[in-house]
Amino acid sequence: MFPHRHLLGIEGLSPADITTLLDLAETYATANRGSTAPEPVLKGLTQINMFFEASTRTQASFELAGKRLGADVMNMAMQASSLSKGETLIDTALTLNAMHPDLIVVRHPQSGAVNLLASKVNCAVLNAGDGRHEHPTQALLDALTIRRRKGRLHRLTVAICGDIAHSRVARSNMILLGLMENRVRLVGPKTLMPSGLDQMVAETTDDMREGLKDADVVMMLRLQRERMDGGFIPSEREYYHRFGLDAEKLAYARPDAIVMHPGPMNRGVEIDGLLADDINHSVIQEQVEMGVAVRMAAMDLLARTLREARDA
Amino acid sequence: MFPHRHLLGIEGLSPADITTLLDLAETYATANRGSTAPEPVLKGLTQINMFFEASTRTQASFELAGKRLGADVMNMAMQASSLSKGETLIDTALTLNAMHPDLIVVRHPQSGAVNLLASKVNCAVLNAGDGRHEHPTQALLDALTIRRRKGRLHRLTVAICGDIAHSRVARSNMILLGLMENRVRLVGPKTLMPSGLDQMVAETTDDMREGLKDADVVMMLRLQRERMDGGFIPSEREYYHRFGLDAEKLAYARPDAIVMHPGPMNRGVEIDGLLADDINHSVIQEQVEMGVAVRMAAMDLLARTLREARDA
Amino acid sequence: MFPHRHLLGIEGLSPADITTLLDLAETYATANRGSTAPEPVLKGLTQINMFFEASTRTQASFELAGKRLGADVMNMAMQASSLSKGETLIDTALTLNAMHPDLIVVRHPQSGAVNLLASKVNCAVLNAGDGRHEHPTQALLDALTIRRRKGRLHRLTVAICGDIAHSRVARSNMILLGLMENRVRLVGPKTLMPSGLDQMVAETTDDMREGLKDADVVMMLRLQRERMDGGFIPSEREYYHRFGLDAEKLAYARPDAIVMHPGPMNRGVEIDGLLADDINHSVIQEQVEMGVAVRMAAMDLLARTLREARDA
Repeated sequence: MFPHRHLLGIEGLSPADITTLLDLAETYATANRGSTAPEPVLKGLTQINMFFEASTRTQASFELAGKRLGADVMNMAMQASSLSKGETLIDTALTLNAMHPDLIVVRHPQSGAVNLLASKVNCAVLNAGDGRHEHPTQALLDALTIRRRKGRLHRLTVAICGDIAHSRVARSNMILLGLMENRVRLVGPKTLMPSGLDQMVAETTDDMREGLKDADVVMMLRLQRERMDGGFIPSEREYYHRFGLDAEKLAYARPDAIVMHPGPMNRGVEIDGLLADDINHSVIQEQVEMGVAVRMAAMDLLARTLREARDA
Repeated sequence: MFPHRHLLGIEGLSPADITTLLDLAETYATANRGSTAPEPVLKGLTQINMFFEASTRTQASFELAGKRLGADVMNMAMQASSLSKGETLIDTALTLNAMHPDLIVVRHPQSGAVNLLASKVNCAVLNAGDGRHEHPTQALLDALTIRRRKGRLHRLTVAICGDIAHSRVARSNMILLGLMENRVRLVGPKTLMPSGLDQMVAETTDDMREGLKDADVVMMLRLQRERMDGGFIPSEREYYHRFGLDAEKLAYARPDAIVMHPGPMNRGVEIDGLLADDINHSVIQEQVEMGVAVRMAAMDLLARTLREARDA
Repeated sequence: MFPHRHLLGIEGLSPADITTLLDLAETYATANRGSTAPEPVLKGLTQINMFFEASTRTQASFELAGKRLGADVMNMAMQASSLSKGETLIDTALTLNAMHPDLIVVRHPQSGAVNLLASKVNCAVLNAGDGRHEHPTQALLDALTIRRRKGRLHRLTVAICGDIAHSRVARSNMILLGLMENRVRLVGPKTLMPSGLDQMVAETTDDMREGLKDADVVMMLRLQRERMDGGFIPSEREYYHRFGLDAEKLAYARPDAIVMHPGPMNRGVEIDGLLADDINHSVIQEQVEMGVAVRMAAMDLLARTLREARDA
């Protein structure tokens, strides 16, 4: 049904896997809005959150998802500085593994670190973001939000805008949206475009008006100053003028276009504050809400795989 | 019965509200001393502690109160520095709200921040201290301690001593004690007196002997050096000489006077170390104990309001 | 059966106490490997972890042990800096005590601090390491690992190697291994040997080849640079050359010798990286695994004492 031990990226998932996960997440989204608690399908399981990069909101979302399903959740504050050698990350993985956890949620500043860790442990690993590589639960929560608002997750025109080069969110979304047969446009300054673009991406532009034309979905990205090592860094004012989303630029998209942002937002840099709060277009709060539901679904599915493997 | 969605301050509560809450807290205090666990009235509910100011003991008290009643408790470490703009506090509130928590406990360095946050969310908000504004659970736990020791919570003479100006503890206590018809005296250096005093306060003095005369309750405050921006700061030695509580000054109060302190204490600055440990007068440990009971009662009552609203 | 209110050190335990604890830990080790959850013997009890020194792995081990047995676990981040006076540690103890926890797990940089704290509270206290004094659960998990691998815990030759002077791990192990009638050798540079050695220790040497001769167990220690105030500090390279464990030095031990390390390891300083991973000798991951089991057993036994005292 969901033939995976880990959730390390969107790469490796099939369209059927994605649909399975989103369908289950949809039922959790409904449960979360109501007053009845979901089945405690993670009861007796131990979930460890290891965040080598601080992220209050993503960690809270995973913690809430686990607790809502009955897991024992532990947060381990990790400092990437003391773990700069790959060797030591492996020691950390082996140590954790020896404690027999069931689910490990990992965020790490280095691309590939989560895959390395997953290769050393017996439990299920969920990637909560690794370097510029992948952030699969973000792409899945974006997909669920789109599907709820647009009624489908295929043949849509999606403009992903801003700092594409440093964004694992963009990367995971490009893969997912391509897989589900949508048209993806990348819009941003040339200096913030990735050098080796995926073949599934059809179009790139540095003109917001051209990029947003007839878009069903406008997905803004966070300007990741902390990842920009050297290279050109635009001023916030200049960036907002050319690439910040406001009502005038949004007018080029379809009238029923939705506006997304993975948060936390820099209001007045990536997006106009009023537009971010405009419930006719903005689905930013719904993204957060779907985040909990998607993480519940992902952990539920991985726990099923885990139990099957243990019973076998 | 307790007609409030939030507990943002003592202001807005009626004497009947206070009595309802203290009566319920009394039953929890008894349960906490015994070996039988209380009913898990918060089971299935999610409590999020958001402390924008570090406070090990208050956070622990709320966490313990929630867990004892069966809540799923999450601590979110917030850094006020990254949230200096009101705008961003609202984004944080909206993000949290989208995760559908049931109870949010907030401490924030800015007066009014907790009320602002409460206006943006659908769940119950408890103020765990905001700037110089209010700290309602502290005033309630003080009130419960006084009521247990004195047998009543009215017509008592209460001397609140020390750094009144910077103290939300003093402010919440003044309102509560005034509401319950007690006589409140403020004792402290003129430079640490608030400028616009509440009309319910009858007396102020900078003479400890005069202020403590015939007092039933002597409530010491913490010297809040971290809140003193500019202005006169007394030396610790000078402060202790004039305003620190010792046996000689306490002799002016009634022989059965109780001594209180919200903690953490600066022994030898606000209070003599031996006096702090003198079980004939000091109720400082009982205050901590009542803190858990009062927070259990507050969350229990707010959860009832929440369930009624959801069922309606 | 286990006639102790606290677990403050190996000192004070009898051989029968140690056997009782290890036998119970053995059953938890089996349960942790299987898929059936153990009885929630700590349900309704509150465990507080107070780490005045950061230790991700030890804290995680205690947290996991408590949660697996159904306890409500709270982590309190303590800063030793704000608690430099013994007075204030007592205030912290009294404050905690007033909240009525059942189990407190404490790590503190000062030798004796945990005993002081235990003398002020009504609940059970577990020492998770205090200064250079004791780290009893580490010695117990080492003992359980040895007993599983060697089939017995007596008449073994155990070489404890490295920075003995700064090591509470070495101290607790020396006491336990002596008590169970093993032959203990201390191997390390003279500058890292303790000055007043316990009478139960038979031999010391600064020659690894001599010290490891015919050893059944080789126990490496972490080089504790953070505890070395003044005095001679060897370079890592020089230290590894003379005292680092590699295949050549290990060849002096018995062919079936096991290699232990309390972690976290400095690979290439205290131990060769390949040897650390060599499953023919290294039991380092099993130590971590036994750590959870031993802590479950210790908390289970102390909770029984606690309940008996409360029922009496």
